[in-house]
Amino acid sequence: MAQARSLVVLLSDFGSDSPYVGAMKGALLEVHPGLALVDLTHAVPAQGVETAAWLLALHYRSFPAGSVFLAVVDPGVGSGRRALVARAGDYFCVAPDNGLLSGLVAREPDSEIRCLADESLWREPRSATFHGRDLFAPAAAWLARGRDLAAFGPPCLDPCRLDLPRCRREAGVLVGRLLFADAFGNLISDVDSLSLARFCTEEHLAAADLRFEIGTVRIHGLVTCYAEAQPGEALALVGSSGQLEIAVNQGSAAEGLGLAPGQALRVSGARGRDGQGRAG
Amino acid sequence: MAQARSLVVLLSDFGSDSPYVGAMKGALLEVHPGLALVDLTHAVPAQGVETAAWLLALHYRSFPAGSVFLAVVDPGVGSGRRALVARAGDYFCVAPDNGLLSGLVAREPDSEIRCLADESLWREPRSATFHGRDLFAPAAAWLARGRDLAAFGPPCLDPCRLDLPRCRREAGVLVGRLLFADAFGNLISDVDSLSLARFCTEEHLAAADLRFEIGTVRIHGLVTCYAEAQPGEALALVGSSGQLEIAVNQGSAAEGLGLAPGQALRVSGARGRDGQGRAG
Amino acid sequence: MAQARSLVVLLSDFGSDSPYVGAMKGALLEVHPGLALVDLTHAVPAQGVETAAWLLALHYRSFPAGSVFLAVVDPGVGSGRRALVARAGDYFCVAPDNGLLSGLVAREPDSEIRCLADESLWREPRSATFHGRDLFAPAAAWLARGRDLAAFGPPCLDPCRLDLPRCRREAGVLVGRLLFADAFGNLISDVDSLSLARFCTEEHLAAADLRFEIGTVRIHGLVTCYAEAQPGEALALVGSSGQLEIAVNQGSAAEGLGLAPGQALRVSGARGRDGQGRAG
Repeated sequence: MAQARSLVVLLSDFGSDSPYVGAMKGALLEVHPGLALVDLTHAVPAQGVETAAWLLALHYRSFPAGSVFLAVVDPGVGSGRRALVARAGDYFCVAPDNGLLSGLVAREPDSEIRCLADESLWREPRSATFHGRDLFAPAAAWLARGRDLAAFGPPCLDPCRLDLPRCRREAGVLVGRLLFADAFGNLISDVDSLSLARFCTEEHLAAADLRFEIGTVRIHGLVTCYAEAQPGEALALVGSSGQLEIAVNQGSAAEGLGLAPGQALRVSGARGRDGQGRAG
Repeated sequence: MAQARSLVVLLSDFGSDSPYVGAMKGALLEVHPGLALVDLTHAVPAQGVETAAWLLALHYRSFPAGSVFLAVVDPGVGSGRRALVARAGDYFCVAPDNGLLSGLVAREPDSEIRCLADESLWREPRSATFHGRDLFAPAAAWLARGRDLAAFGPPCLDPCRLDLPRCRREAGVLVGRLLFADAFGNLISDVDSLSLARFCTEEHLAAADLRFEIGTVRIHGLVTCYAEAQPGEALALVGSSGQLEIAVNQGSAAEGLGLAPGQALRVSGARGRDGQGRAG
Repeated sequence: MAQARSLVVLLSDFGSDSPYVGAMKGALLEVHPGLALVDLTHAVPAQGVETAAWLLALHYRSFPAGSVFLAVVDPGVGSGRRALVARAGDYFCVAPDNGLLSGLVAREPDSEIRCLADESLWREPRSATFHGRDLFAPAAAWLARGRDLAAFGPPCLDPCRLDLPRCRREAGVLVGRLLFADAFGNLISDVDSLSLARFCTEEHLAAADLRFEIGTVRIHGLVTCYAEAQPGEALALVGSSGQLEIAVNQGSAAEGLGLAPGQALRVSGARGRDGQGRAG
């Protein structure tokens, strides 16, 4: 376990070109020179706490058990907002208390959250504007060194929670939302594979019966991989983070279909075989 | 050798900001926590298998012998396309079977290619859309741990090969193509230093006699470094990956000269000294 | 110390997507496979030696003592310009002799600069256009392995020095300049916290009395963190690298206020309490 915990994964809104990312890594390696460091992304929109919460929730399972996430989207830095350290299942995270942990903790009910209260954690001289470097990075490095969660501070019983959007059932329709576009122009939604499977079961639908509507775009049938559609054709599939995704094979759904984060997504059934299909 | 093989170099079309890159690193470190990881680039155009094949061929020699390349440009992910593992000279690579290995293998005739057939390599749960994380990353990490090539699967005797563009001789002219622009706006071509040297020898040309035409741009003489031209002046040189390159000293050839990948490049002789120079 | 020196921090104008960055890392790991590598940034504008000198000066203290900086902004590569290796206080740096070290050395008077003259340092085959990979990276790796500074070459007594802009006093006003914008759109200036503190002391000003003018933008009072201003409100504070910074809480000063690097910044006093405030 000690070995597995020596990986720190960084997530922030600093921008990929930012020297602030390197500065956090300097502070991490000062505490724990043997640490492995991986960037999840630093392209979270500025102050995009909700986006960061989603990215953390969708990707943490790609990392080994014991990984420590250093998640810094922190518009309240230097104000009274608390700083947190958490264990969520087999993972660890440090983050400001602004809801960034919401998605992770919701997926790992066996979790424990504490306040980063130990004053000895701070890197000196401490700044009022960069707790990512001066508090969160040293704390993450100490976590990765195996420091006990209880040593960081008292339990936090009322962490700030974000109400992350979730897909919902409405009269035979599953209604969700597009969350982000990746670099391929694939749109990842808030419809998770479990909700989709339950919807299919309850509505007696096969994957091929499903119908997807996003604005004026209509897609029939769920496929399992991009290449199952023709080049240039729109498709829907469950992507690698377990979420329903709208894509164009060898193209960009964002550009080609004009889709964007925030748009509503409706999943319904079009049962052709038994003549009960809905109108188009 | 075991030590030298503990470096994995990543190349993909995921985009530098993509969480998918971090996810592959998580999968790599899960198999081999001590691994060193280096990004070659993740800015390959989406589905740009040919560009990736070129980048791999032009840059692999910058890395230590024994390095393992994890090359994932994979539009056919989840379909029937095979997954490959290769040794090419002193280097190793895992990649989908779509031609991505073509340039590397062409430069390293002593090579061996096998199919990634061992089902135990997969990370669980396996997705149908992200074999970079679920198959290629674990395979690369096992290679870096020293696993024998033969243990990954049977020999692949008919790997997909791309016909990468190569410069050719045409009646006293060497004809090539611009391949890509780097961040400085330098244009790297498919004319390699060996072809250029052979052309000079056979045509009895010195470097200073060479003449370069790209569209309406004319450059006389090959220089050895950027600073040999005046600031703002166009120049041709053999760049650090051994390819002929068109540049502007302290400027951008892409912007300043309006050059772009895909344009034809003609190299000929302009022998001023003995009066045999060709017309302009 | 040997352990602390095993971190190399990279800074260049290659662009974050560039394979040249990976190539330097390959060359570093060839010499010292156990090295930790961190990117400061590769988004320095092409040939932006002055920007790189500033970035190095403002951020080196975020890294552990003993860190080695590999700083490559090198328009004169392959020409006669010298290559340098330096110790500046507890830090080390390799860089071309073009002024890139100026800011670092100015902040660390206990410094020693030598020429990279040892021919055995070069990676073979050496290129004329990429000394970052072929000379500076191996030299940085040898430094990180603990090689003595004197072993690299003779002392350099006349390194190229850039005259980096510094804020100056003019009749009760502190005059500076905006240096760069970060990804949040915060503008970092050349006014350092020490100059600001001295100005306040000598002019008998409290932080709340300070008044900042940049073009038509007027800001009253220095705050300590972004959240002290209202969302969308302009503010001035001393940022995490110790420089005066103009920002907008939860917004972008670059976009929202139309500010850009190069603009002049004037700091003066507006003593409201004793009626001696200057006119607006």
